[in-house]
Amino acid sequence: MHIKNLKAVGAEVVAACDIDEAELKYVKANFGVDNLYRDYRDLIARSDINAVVVATPNYLHHRMTIDALREGKHVLCEKPPALTAREVKEMYDEARRRGRALLIGLTLRFRADSRALRKYVEEVGIGEAYYAHASLLRRSGIPGYGSWFTRKAEAGSGPLYDIGVHALDITMWLINNFRAREVYASTYAKFGPRGKGLGTWGKPVPGGPFDVEDLASVMFKMEDGATIFLEVSWAAHIAGDSFRVLVLGERGGLEFPGAKVYSEEGVLVDKQLRYQEEDPYVVEMRHFVEVAEKGVEPITKPDEMVGLQAALEAALKSAAEGRVVRVSEVL
Amino acid sequence: MHIKNLKAVGAEVVAACDIDEAELKYVKANFGVDNLYRDYRDLIARSDINAVVVATPNYLHHRMTIDALREGKHVLCEKPPALTAREVKEMYDEARRRGRALLIGLTLRFRADSRALRKYVEEVGIGEAYYAHASLLRRSGIPGYGSWFTRKAEAGSGPLYDIGVHALDITMWLINNFRAREVYASTYAKFGPRGKGLGTWGKPVPGGPFDVEDLASVMFKMEDGATIFLEVSWAAHIAGDSFRVLVLGERGGLEFPGAKVYSEEGVLVDKQLRYQEEDPYVVEMRHFVEVAEKGVEPITKPDEMVGLQAALEAALKSAAEGRVVRVSEVL
Amino acid sequence: MHIKNLKAVGAEVVAACDIDEAELKYVKANFGVDNLYRDYRDLIARSDINAVVVATPNYLHHRMTIDALREGKHVLCEKPPALTAREVKEMYDEARRRGRALLIGLTLRFRADSRALRKYVEEVGIGEAYYAHASLLRRSGIPGYGSWFTRKAEAGSGPLYDIGVHALDITMWLINNFRAREVYASTYAKFGPRGKGLGTWGKPVPGGPFDVEDLASVMFKMEDGATIFLEVSWAAHIAGDSFRVLVLGERGGLEFPGAKVYSEEGVLVDKQLRYQEEDPYVVEMRHFVEVAEKGVEPITKPDEMVGLQAALEAALKSAAEGRVVRVSEVL
Amino acid sequence: MHIKNLKAVGAEVVAACDIDEAELKYVKANFGVDNLYRDYRDLIARSDINAVVVATPNYLHHRMTIDALREGKHVLCEKPPALTAREVKEMYDEARRRGRALLIGLTLRFRADSRALRKYVEEVGIGEAYYAHASLLRRSGIPGYGSWFTRKAEAGSGPLYDIGVHALDITMWLINNFRAREVYASTYAKFGPRGKGLGTWGKPVPGGPFDVEDLASVMFKMEDGATIFLEVSWAAHIAGDSFRVLVLGERGGLEFPGAKVYSEEGVLVDKQLRYQEEDPYVVEMRHFVEVAEKGVEPITKPDEMVGLQAALEAALKSAAEGRVVRVSEVL
Amino acid sequence: MHIKNLKAVGAEVVAACDIDEAELKYVKANFGVDNLYRDYRDLIARSDINAVVVATPNYLHHRMTIDALREGKHVLCEKPPALTAREVKEMYDEARRRGRALLIGLTLRFRADSRALRKYVEEVGIGEAYYAHASLLRRSGIPGYGSWFTRKAEAGSGPLYDIGVHALDITMWLINNFRAREVYASTYAKFGPRGKGLGTWGKPVPGGPFDVEDLASVMFKMEDGATIFLEVSWAAHIAGDSFRVLVLGERGGLEFPGAKVYSEEGVLVDKQLRYQEEDPYVVEMRHFVEVAEKGVEPITKPDEMVGLQAALEAALKSAAEGRVVRVSEVL
Amino acid sequence: MHIKNLKAVGAEVVAACDIDEAELKYVKANFGVDNLYRDYRDLIARSDINAVVVATPNYLHHRMTIDALREGKHVLCEKPPALTAREVKEMYDEARRRGRALLIGLTLRFRADSRALRKYVEEVGIGEAYYAHASLLRRSGIPGYGSWFTRKAEAGSGPLYDIGVHALDITMWLINNFRAREVYASTYAKFGPRGKGLGTWGKPVPGGPFDVEDLASVMFKMEDGATIFLEVSWAAHIAGDSFRVLVLGERGGLEFPGAKVYSEEGVLVDKQLRYQEEDPYVVEMRHFVEVAEKGVEPITKPDEMVGLQAALEAALKSAAEGRVVRVSEVL
Repeated sequence: MHIKNLKAVGAEVVAACDIDEAELKYVKANFGVDNLYRDYRDLIARSDINAVVVATPNYLHHRMTIDALREGKHVLCEKPPALTAREVKEMYDEARRRGRALLIGLTLRFRADSRALRKYVEEVGIGEAYYAHASLLRRSGIPGYGSWFTRKAEAGSGPLYDIGVHALDITMWLINNFRAREVYASTYAKFGPRGKGLGTWGKPVPGGPFDVEDLASVMFKMEDGATIFLEVSWAAHIAGDSFRVLVLGERGGLEFPGAKVYSEEGVLVDKQLRYQEEDPYVVEMRHFVEVAEKGVEPITKPDEMVGLQAALEAALKSAAEGRVVRVSEVL
Repeated sequence: MHIKNLKAVGAEVVAACDIDEAELKYVKANFGVDNLYRDYRDLIARSDINAVVVATPNYLHHRMTIDALREGKHVLCEKPPALTAREVKEMYDEARRRGRALLIGLTLRFRADSRALRKYVEEVGIGEAYYAHASLLRRSGIPGYGSWFTRKAEAGSGPLYDIGVHALDITMWLINNFRAREVYASTYAKFGPRGKGLGTWGKPVPGGPFDVEDLASVMFKMEDGATIFLEVSWAAHIAGDSFRVLVLGERGGLEFPGAKVYSEEGVLVDKQLRYQEEDPYVVEMRHFVEVAEKGVEPITKPDEMVGLQAALEAALKSAAEGRVVRVSEVL
Repeated sequence: MHIKNLKAVGAEVVAACDIDEAELKYVKANFGVDNLYRDYRDLIARSDINAVVVATPNYLHHRMTIDALREGKHVLCEKPPALTAREVKEMYDEARRRGRALLIGLTLRFRADSRALRKYVEEVGIGEAYYAHASLLRRSGIPGYGSWFTRKAEAGSGPLYDIGVHALDITMWLINNFRAREVYASTYAKFGPRGKGLGTWGKPVPGGPFDVEDLASVMFKMEDGATIFLEVSWAAHIAGDSFRVLVLGERGGLEFPGAKVYSEEGVLVDKQLRYQEEDPYVVEMRHFVEVAEKGVEPITKPDEMVGLQAALEAALKSAAEGRVVRVSEVL
Repeated sequence: MHIKNLKAVGAEVVAACDIDEAELKYVKANFGVDNLYRDYRDLIARSDINAVVVATPNYLHHRMTIDALREGKHVLCEKPPALTAREVKEMYDEARRRGRALLIGLTLRFRADSRALRKYVEEVGIGEAYYAHASLLRRSGIPGYGSWFTRKAEAGSGPLYDIGVHALDITMWLINNFRAREVYASTYAKFGPRGKGLGTWGKPVPGGPFDVEDLASVMFKMEDGATIFLEVSWAAHIAGDSFRVLVLGERGGLEFPGAKVYSEEGVLVDKQLRYQEEDPYVVEMRHFVEVAEKGVEPITKPDEMVGLQAALEAALKSAAEGRVVRVSEVL
Repeated sequence: MHIKNLKAVGAEVVAACDIDEAELKYVKANFGVDNLYRDYRDLIARSDINAVVVATPNYLHHRMTIDALREGKHVLCEKPPALTAREVKEMYDEARRRGRALLIGLTLRFRADSRALRKYVEEVGIGEAYYAHASLLRRSGIPGYGSWFTRKAEAGSGPLYDIGVHALDITMWLINNFRAREVYASTYAKFGPRGKGLGTWGKPVPGGPFDVEDLASVMFKMEDGATIFLEVSWAAHIAGDSFRVLVLGERGGLEFPGAKVYSEEGVLVDKQLRYQEEDPYVVEMRHFVEVAEKGVEPITKPDEMVGLQAALEAALKSAAEGRVVRVSEVL
Repeated sequence: MHIKNLKAVGAEVVAACDIDEAELKYVKANFGVDNLYRDYRDLIARSDINAVVVATPNYLHHRMTIDALREGKHVLCEKPPALTAREVKEMYDEARRRGRALLIGLTLRFRADSRALRKYVEEVGIGEAYYAHASLLRRSGIPGYGSWFTRKAEAGSGPLYDIGVHALDITMWLINNFRAREVYASTYAKFGPRGKGLGTWGKPVPGGPFDVEDLASVMFKMEDGATIFLEVSWAAHIAGDSFRVLVLGERGGLEFPGAKVYSEEGVLVDKQLRYQEEDPYVVEMRHFVEVAEKGVEPITKPDEMVGLQAALEAALKSAAEGRVVRVSEVL
C-alpha cells in the first residue's frame, strides 16, 4: 500500500525490504521495484535513497528508524511511534542530530474532516477545551492472531497501541494538547484468549500467543486541567465498528469523524463543515514527499509524539498496576 | 405529576403538602385534593394515610423519609436517595425497624426497554459483564437556575446526582452489580457560572447561585474487576441531548435505550428485543401502590441504593480532591 | 381561532361580531362570549374594549380598522393590510393621529425558525443581501370557492394577496428591505375557472365567481439594487404544498423554513440554527396583548406595511397591463 | 472526453487540434490519435474527415463551425451555440447551404429522465404549458478563474451562457416552446471579483480577469403567453449544487431531474416515470454519429437554437440596461 | 366504539344491549344511553328504533340479524357476515323480504386508500385482473384467548374468518370479482394450543379452549380464470404485523394499503394516488346512517357477501379434508 | 462469466465450446482460451480435462451432462437440473455409475445471507418448519424474447423453471425438506404474447415464439404436512423486482434475503444475522473446484435435485390440467 501511494504522489521507489521472500516477489511483480533486500541494513546503506518508510512490527520502529536516520535518510515510521516514550525521545534526538525529518504515520490527521475541524479550531476557535471523549471500538477485529500483533513483547500492547494511538492522537491534535499528567486505566482480554473476535487484517500465525489486551478504557487528566476519556477495543459485543471523538470547549464542541461543530451564535447552532474526501494515505505520502524533498516540517512534532507515547505507556502501566500513574514516571 | 399518576393507577390521594401556597391551590383546583399542608409533619401525622411520596430538594430526602417511616408510612422517595451513603443507610435502617417499605424513584427501571433487557439478562444471560459505559449528556438543560438545583448545599451535586444517578443505577441494575471499589473523576462548571446552558425544567430563582458542576466524567472500578465509565452533563456543546448505556459481557452486549443485544450464535447476531412502550411514571406508581398495599418488595433494594449513593458520593470526592477515592471511605 | 388564542395568552374577550348568526352562536357556546353583534360599529362603540381584531374579507380591512382606531381601539388587522398601498397609508395615518397601535397579522414573523434567522441576521449578519427567492405553492388549495376569497372586488387578488403577502413579507423582513422600485409579473387562472384545485379552507359559496388569479410569478427590483423573485399558487400540478425562501447575501445565505444558514468560516459551513417550535398564532396574540397593554411597538412597522402592499399592488398591475410597473405609481 | 465517447460509440477519430501542445501529446498517448494540429484550418482541410467536434471557447464557435461546414464537415458544436442569435442564424444558414448537419451539445436532452418526460409529454401530454421554473445553482463552482470562462469578450457571459443554456434549453424542449417575446433580468457578481466561489472545472489563469456575472435571475414572457423563470449561479451561499425544472401545464406538471409527473386521474396522482440511466455524453455521441453517418436529423433544430440564444442574449441585455428587452431586438 | 362513532356522525343512540351488566353500566355512564337491555329481543321490539348494529360473536350474526330485520330494523352486522354462505343467503333473503337494508361491517372499504384505488379502477382501469395476492399476518395477535374468538363452534374459524375476511373482501372488491370456483388450503395451529402468540384485543377467558387455526394459506381459482392467493395469521415468527394486497391486471397493478398503481404510459410508471386519511369507522357509520335514513344502497352487496362467505367456508373445508373444494359444494 | 470466475478461483480453463463462432472469438480474445469447439463432444473427448460446466439451454442439460459424465468429467450443470425429474434421476444415476460428481448451479446457496441462515438453522434451529412463502417477481424481465428462453420445447417452462427453481430450492434447502406430496398451481402469460415486459438478459430472437408462462403461483403440500407457497413472474405490473422468502417454524421464523430471524427469548426478539457479502458466483466456482479436485461432496444432493425438479414439473402439470397433481405422478 505504501508503495502504491508513494508512486501515486510521484515518488520514485528505489528499493524494498522484507524478511518474507514471497512479499518481495510480489513487490517486484506488481510495482517493478528491482532492488530487494531481506536485511534492512543493506537497503539503508544505499546512497541513492534519501527517505525510507518503516512499516514493521512495533518493537522494531525504534532501532530501524534510528539506523535509517544515521544513514542520513528521512523517515516515515508507522504508528505507534515506538514501544516507550523514551524510545521516541531517542528517535527524535537522532533525527535532530542528523538533521533529518521523522514523520509518524498517524493517517487520521490527513483526513479531510479532521483537517476541516483543525482549520476551524485555528481560525474560529472553541474556547478552552476542557473535556474530550474518544471511542474507537471494533466488534470483531483482532488482527493477525498469533502474529506479532498479539504478542506483548513485539507489539507492546493490543488495541491501545494499535488503534488507540490514532484516537488519542487525533483528539490531542484537535485541541493541540499533548501533555497528560495522570492516567487511570483498565484493560481486559475477554475474546483473544478464547480465539474469538478475529478480524481480517494481518496474517494470523496458527498456534501463536495472545498476551495483550482486547479492550482498554482510560481517563487522562491533562496538565491544564482538561480530561480526556479514551476507550478502544479489538473485539466486543457491540453493534459494529464505531469511532467517535467528541471535544468540548467553552465556546464550541467538535465531533469527529464528520466535521461537525456545535456552538452558540445568538441561537444554538449546529455546523456541518464541508470538505472534499480524499484518500488520507495518499495525502500522507504527498506530505512525506514534501517533507523529504522540500524540507517541509512534519505534521507530527517531536513533543507531540513523545507526549502521545507517554500517555499510552502510562495507561498500560496504570492498568497493569491498578493505580493512577503519573506520566512523569515514564518520561 | 405524581398526583396524576397515583390517580391513574387507582390510588386515593388524601393530602398534599408544599411550602408554596400557589402550588397547593393548583393541586386543589386540578386534582380535588382537600387536605393541604405547608408543614409536612402535619401531613404525615394523619392516621388515614398509609403511604407518602417525598419529592423535595435532595437535602430533605433523608429527614422527611425517616420522619414519615416513623409515622408508619410507606415511602416513595425521589432520586437521588439522599446526599450521602450514610444517610441512605439510616433511611433503610429506619424502614427495616418500622417494617415499612422504601422505594426510590429511579424511573428508568420502569421503562419497557430496560425491563426487556433485564429480563433477557436473567433468562439468557451475557456471561461475565466486565465493562460498561453510560453517557447521559444534555446540550442546554440546567434546571432551576439559582434554585436548590444549582446550590451544592441543597442538591449535593449538579448533574451527577440529578441525572447521573439514573444512568449509573440503570447500568448497575442491568448487570446486577452495585459494588464499586475505587473511583476516579473530573467535574467542570463551564456553563452554569456564566448563566449559559439553561433548560426549561424547574423554577429558576433570579440571582441565585450556581456552585455545582455542569459536567462530570467518572471511572468506577468494581469489586469484581469490572469497570464502569460514566459521563453526564447539564450543558455542553454537543448535537443534542443524548443517553446511551453500553454493557459488555463475555457472551453478549447490551445497548440501552432501545433494548438491543449483540452476541454470537454460530454467526454474529444483532438482536432487537421487542417491547411495548408504557409511561414509566405510571408503571412506577403502580409498583408503589403494590408495594404499599400488597407488601410487594420494592424494586430498589437497600444494598443497591447504598452502593449507588456511595459510588456517586465517592465520585464527587474524587473530583474535589483530585485523587482516586476508595468507596469504603464514604461507607 | 383568534378567540381561543387570545384566551390562551390571558386576554379577556369581551365581545364578538359576525354577520352570520350561526357563528355567533358557536362563539357563545364554545367561548362564553356574551356580547355578540352583527354590526361591528356597535362593538367598537363599547367603552370597555381597548383592542379589537379585524378578521374580515380584505376589502373591509381599511374601513373597519379606521373606524376602530377612531373609537380609540388598538387593532390587530388580518393580512393583507388592505387592498391598496394608499389604504394602508390611511390606516397608519389614523393610528398615528389617534395614538393607537396597528398590528398586521403576518403570522410567519412569529415562527420560531423565522425569529432565529432574523436574530442571526441581526447578530452575525450575512453581508449585502442581493438576491432572494420566495416560492409558496399549493397543489390543491383554492379557499372558499365562490366566496369573497375568489372575488376580485372583495379579495383584491387571489394567492398573491392571500399567501404571497406572507412569503414576500417574511423575505423582506429577513433582509430588512421593503423598498421595491420596479415590478414585472405574470398571473394565470388555470384551475379556478374550471372548478378544479379546491382546498378545504374557507366556506365555498356554490355558484359564486372566480375572477382572481390562481398562480403568480413576480420579479421585484429593489431600490438598493437587490432582486426578489416571488412565485405563489393556490393550485398547480406539483408534488404538494411547498414553501421555500432563499436569501443570498455576500457573506451568508438563509433558508426558510427550517432556519438554515450557509456561509464560509475558513471552510464552507452549513449551519442549522436551533429553535423551539411554538404555535405562531399564540405568539402573535401574546405580542398583540403586549402591544395593547404595555405599549410595545408592533413588529409590523408602518413603512414596512406600506412598502409590502405597494409591491403586491404593483405586481397585480404589471400582470394586468403586461409591462414593468414602477412602485412609485401606486404610492 | 469527447474523444473517449466517440470511440465508445464506434467512431474513428482521425485527427485532433489544440493550441496547447501538451494536450495534443496527451491525446496521442492516451487515444492513439496520430494526426494532430495546432491550427484547426489544417484539420478541417483533410478530406478523410466527415465530421468534427467544436469544443472551444464560446467566441470561436461561430467562426470555426462555419469554416468546418464550408469544408463539408458535419459539426457537433458545444453549447452555447454562439455569442449572439445572429451568429447562430449564420451558422445554420451555412449548414443549410452546405447540406451539412449542425448539432449543438445540449447534453441534458440525452439524459434518460429528460427523454422519459419528453416521451410522456408526446404520448400523454400535460395540456397547455403556461408556467415553468428552472433553477440551476452552484454553491462554489466558478470554472477556470481568469481563463476565457470568466472573460466577457470570450465567454459572452458567466453562468447564464455556461449552464443557464442547459437549464433553459431543457425547459423549452420539454414544452416545445422556444419563442420568447420579452425578457426582464438581473445579474450579479458577488463572488468572482473577490476570488471566492471557485470550482474545480477548467484551468484557472492566475491574474486573469473576472468580468462576467456569477448569478442571474430572469423572467421570460413567451409569445403564447406562458412565462418561464430562470435562475442560475456559479457561486452562492446555498446548501449545495441544485438543479430543478418545474413545468406546469393545465393537465399535468413535470419535474426534472428525476422524471416525476403530477396530474389528476379521478384522484390526484403522483407519477414516477421509470428509466434506465445511461451516460448522456455517450448517448449524445451516438446521436452525432447517426447524424453524420445516417442523415438522422439533429435533435437540436435550427429555430430552437436561434430562439434559445436570442432569449439568453436578451436576458443579458435586459440586466445590463435595466429594462425589459423584446427578443425581436436581438434577432 | 360503535356508539361513539354513531354519535360522531349525528345518529341518536336510543338503546343498547349486552349480556354483561358491567358493559351496560359503562355505556350508560359514558354515552348517556338510558335504554339498556340484556336480551336483544327486548331492544329490537322497540318501535322508536329504525336501525341496529349487531356486534356479537360470529355464530349469533345470523339469528340476530334476521330477528332484527323481521322487526323492521335496518342492520349493520359485523364481519364475517355469518358462519356459512347459506346463513348469509338467508339473512339477505330476509332483508329483501322485509325491505330493509343489511350492511356488513367490512371497514377496509371505507379507508381513503382503498376508495382511491377503487375509484382509479373504475375511472382508468387496469385491464383484466388475473392474479391477486393478499397477505395479512400478525406476529402476536391471538384475540380473546379462551373466549368465543378461539372456539370453533362460536367463531367458525380463527384468523381466516376474523381478519382473512377483510383481506379477501378488499381484494375481491378492488377487482369486482366475488365468484370463486375452486379452493385449496392449509391451516395450522402452532401457537394457540401452546398459549403463545397472544394479543391485546378481546377479553381472554382463562381455561377456555383454542380449537381454531392460527395460520391459513389459501389458493382460490375464480370462475373467470383468475387466481387469488390469501395468507393470514394471528401469530407467526415474523417481523411484525403486516398487510399487503397486490392485484395484477393486464394494464396495471394495484398495491394496498397505500394506494399505489403500476402501469405503462409510453414508459413504465409508478403512481401514488393521493388521498386524505379519515377514520374508516366514522366513514362506515356515516354510510350506515345514510343507508338507514336516506335509502342509499349498502356498499356490501348481497351477491358479494354470499360469494365472500362461500369462499372462506370452502377454504376451511379444503384444509380440513385435504382436497380441492368446489365453492358450489357450500352454496 | 463462468470462465472469469473459474480463473478467479485458480482453475485452469483448457477449452470452451459454443455453437456461435462470435462467442468463441470473444472467449479467445478476452480469456486466452485456445481450445475452442463448436461440438461439445469434441471438448469432452479431451483427456486433459477433468471437469466441465454445462451452461446451455435447459433441454440440453440432460444429454450433455450424461455424455460428459460418461467421458469421466465432473460436471457443474446450470439450473434447472433438467426438464423432468426422470431426467435428473438419470443424470445422477450416471454420475454414481461413473464415480463422478454432479453439481447444479443453484447460486443462491452460495450467498452469504443464505449460508448464515442455514448455519443458524443447523446450530440453533427454529423448531418444526410448517409454512414457507417464496415470492420472486420481476416487473419487466422476460429474457431472450423469442430465443430458447421463451420456447416451451427448449426451456420447459418460463419463470417457473428459470427463476422459480432458485426460489423453491433455497426455501427447501433452508428447511431441509425437498419432499412435496401434492401441488396446485396457476400460470398466466399476459405480457409475453404481447411482446411486453421484456428485460435485458439473454439474446432476443426477432420473430421467435413465446409459448411459456410469464407468471406462476403454486401451493405445495409437503410429505410432512408443511405447506410451501411459491409465486414467480418474469413480468407484472409491480413496484419493481422483488424477492422474499419467509419460513415459519414453531420456534423461529426466517427471512431471506437479508438473514433475519424472528423468535422469542423471554421477550420477542428480532435477529439480524451478520455476514460478509461475497460474490456468490465466485464462491460457487470455488466449491466446484473443491468438488472436482478434492472430492468434496457437492452441496446439491441427488435426492434434493430430484425432489426439486419433480415439484416444479408437477406444478406445471397442475396448471396445465387444472387439478391437484401428486408429485408421485412425475417420479
